[in-house]
Amino acid sequence: LAAASAGIKDPGANRDDLALIVADQPAAAAAVTTTNLVAAAPVLLTRQRIAQGTCQAVIMNSGNANACTGTQGMEDTISITAAAAHELNVNEDLVIPLSTGVIGARLPVDRILDRVPGLVRKLDVHSLEEVARAIMTTDTHPKTVELEAPCSTGMIHMVGLAKGAGMIAPNMATMLAVILVNARVAPDFLRSVLGRACERTFNRITVDGDTSTNDTLVAMAGGASESVRADGTPEDRTVFAALLEQACSDLAQALVRDGEGASKVVHVRVRGAADTDAALLVARTIAQSLLVKTALHGEDPNWGRIIAAAGRAGVPFQPERLNLSIGDVPVLRNGTPVAGDWEEKAHAIMQQREYDISLELNGGHAEGSIDTTDLSAEYVRINADYRS
Amino acid sequence: LAAASAGIKDPGANRDDLALIVADQPAAAAAVTTTNLVAAAPVLLTRQRIAQGTCQAVIMNSGNANACTGTQGMEDTISITAAAAHELNVNEDLVIPLSTGVIGARLPVDRILDRVPGLVRKLDVHSLEEVARAIMTTDTHPKTVELEAPCSTGMIHMVGLAKGAGMIAPNMATMLAVILVNARVAPDFLRSVLGRACERTFNRITVDGDTSTNDTLVAMAGGASESVRADGTPEDRTVFAALLEQACSDLAQALVRDGEGASKVVHVRVRGAADTDAALLVARTIAQSLLVKTALHGEDPNWGRIIAAAGRAGVPFQPERLNLSIGDVPVLRNGTPVAGDWEEKAHAIMQQREYDISLELNGGHAEGSIDTTDLSAEYVRINADYRS
Repeated sequence: LAAASAGIKDPGANRDDLALIVADQPAAAAAVTTTNLVAAAPVLLTRQRIAQGTCQAVIMNSGNANACTGTQGMEDTISITAAAAHELNVNEDLVIPLSTGVIGARLPVDRILDRVPGLVRKLDVHSLEEVARAIMTTDTHPKTVELEAPCSTGMIHMVGLAKGAGMIAPNMATMLAVILVNARVAPDFLRSVLGRACERTFNRITVDGDTSTNDTLVAMAGGASESVRADGTPEDRTVFAALLEQACSDLAQALVRDGEGASKVVHVRVRGAADTDAALLVARTIAQSLLVKTALHGEDPNWGRIIAAAGRAGVPFQPERLNLSIGDVPVLRNGTPVAGDWEEKAHAIMQQREYDISLELNGGHAEGSIDTTDLSAEYVRINADYRS
Repeated sequence: LAAASAGIKDPGANRDDLALIVADQPAAAAAVTTTNLVAAAPVLLTRQRIAQGTCQAVIMNSGNANACTGTQGMEDTISITAAAAHELNVNEDLVIPLSTGVIGARLPVDRILDRVPGLVRKLDVHSLEEVARAIMTTDTHPKTVELEAPCSTGMIHMVGLAKGAGMIAPNMATMLAVILVNARVAPDFLRSVLGRACERTFNRITVDGDTSTNDTLVAMAGGASESVRADGTPEDRTVFAALLEQACSDLAQALVRDGEGASKVVHVRVRGAADTDAALLVARTIAQSLLVKTALHGEDPNWGRIIAAAGRAGVPFQPERLNLSIGDVPVLRNGTPVAGDWEEKAHAIMQQREYDISLELNGGHAEGSIDTTDLSAEYVRINADYRS
């Protein structure tokens, strides 16, 4: 891995904003990309190239999303991957681009092309954190994960990195993430476990409900010249899938914990729903409500806002069967306010940096959870003043 | 009309928070109430009583929503309407209750019952503004409308009042509103024109995307002992419907202009959609995006956020056919950024207190518009610090 400054965000600053990740050999690869209809040029090219199930290099930049840039944007992203492919002496189709930053501006292609040879010379297995730092936008710190677990053919080593703090919403969170694994697996298997892991991790966090044009999660497996194979037995496949989900979960939690202007992480857990989709929809509606998020910020156990948000989710339930707790403090039982000194206790829970809100619908056996942040005046300042 | 203080919000303060509206005789009546599944006790009672198509009195309070209060809450709202019916010597079924304020707390029923005889003694045709003021929560000023138009049998006089500044979202906006008309019309006709007017006015504004448990719009017609009849001819019906929609529109615009912490009103207009619902869904998604609303606040022509919000609306369109303007300044044409000095011009537009954002999808002939506000740090302060 390697990072460098191409002056994308600020031509004068010497802040790293370009990064390259290269495998020793073509790796099995899969990606999950934004559900936004307006997908950036690098997303369109990544979808096209990753379809073959192999990839050897990823070239990433922050400071510019290369979205809404028309055919010029597509030509730019192709020429950048071509330059990397040429320097690395690999097929152009094996290089995928990831971009994040301001929408609608042209990339400084010449400055990026200038930096490619230097990036290739700097490639180093120890540069994970430098790369994670180079793709940060409003993130306050780089986000990485390193995990390992034994399978029947050897040790699976997995590393990952991600960026994202605002424009974060399920389906999927606004973010770039890359996960690298030593072990070899079949591309179809990788695609299947990556999709499931994304659905259960990145797609269950929210900062502001906005889904970006550039979201991309990429996994590459077996790009190292090693003999570890992680999909040969059912047990190995289980170990691999669990490890990948853990890596996604760790990165997703790092994203929500670094939510723009946020001081809290709240786990909105909905139980007793007819199915998981219904539980998640109620949880998401609560997790994205401005009135809930400002009450979280004010540490105000104003649970009426939680119930009001649940009631507009579009999921049928019986209001008179609702139970609601803040942390372990019941505030509503069978749709009726709990008597007694719940308010002080619930306020004490809400002063914590992390806690649960649990809503029981009593209408089924499915459950789902969304992790959200509080909404602060600082979020408004970041997004009213910062061109992202 | 009459208003009084029942100390609902603050037992010590002498701020009016209770109001009564009475017609000389039973009036044709219709209501539109919240789509929130968790509807407050007064909403449930209003739905039940308004079904008969007549109503003679409305008793309203601010400071307490009487929502999520179980069977006790229903008993409380019934006893308050019973007291008003008794004092007015009308049938209990002809009195409907409207409440707004904090969710989950019991109404101070005894203090309210104490005030009912005094309210009845104070009834005065000139108290429209006092009543509008009594039902305010975070509103900065009372909202009223007075309109008139001739029909074949005489002059139609229409007055209306509304409250609402936060928890405002389409379907319907968090608000209470009452419209009173001298002219007599059939209840079915009133219900039909009120539903259409609401859909085209109150349901097309948003402040924070949260739909309350208490939203209610009530219209009463012909409660005065007058001979004006406004539904006898097609022309009269057209005049009446237009006047009612104008009253709703004026009140809805007053609500969004008083949005919590807001300094701007922006009309998000979407054209070239396959149908009106699609146009409105794209407009709503843009109008509710936190990143769009913070950019409006920062007066930052960061149009990528507008396109990113449109792209996640769930409405199919071709990104390469999009045109976008801020005011009269084109910023995107055929999905490609406009060259030249658009940024300074668009910034100048965004410094205005009110302007349009126009998105052309070029995928059909339908259009729709949603009026929204900017999102300020002040909104966060109001909702993190205020128990509403």
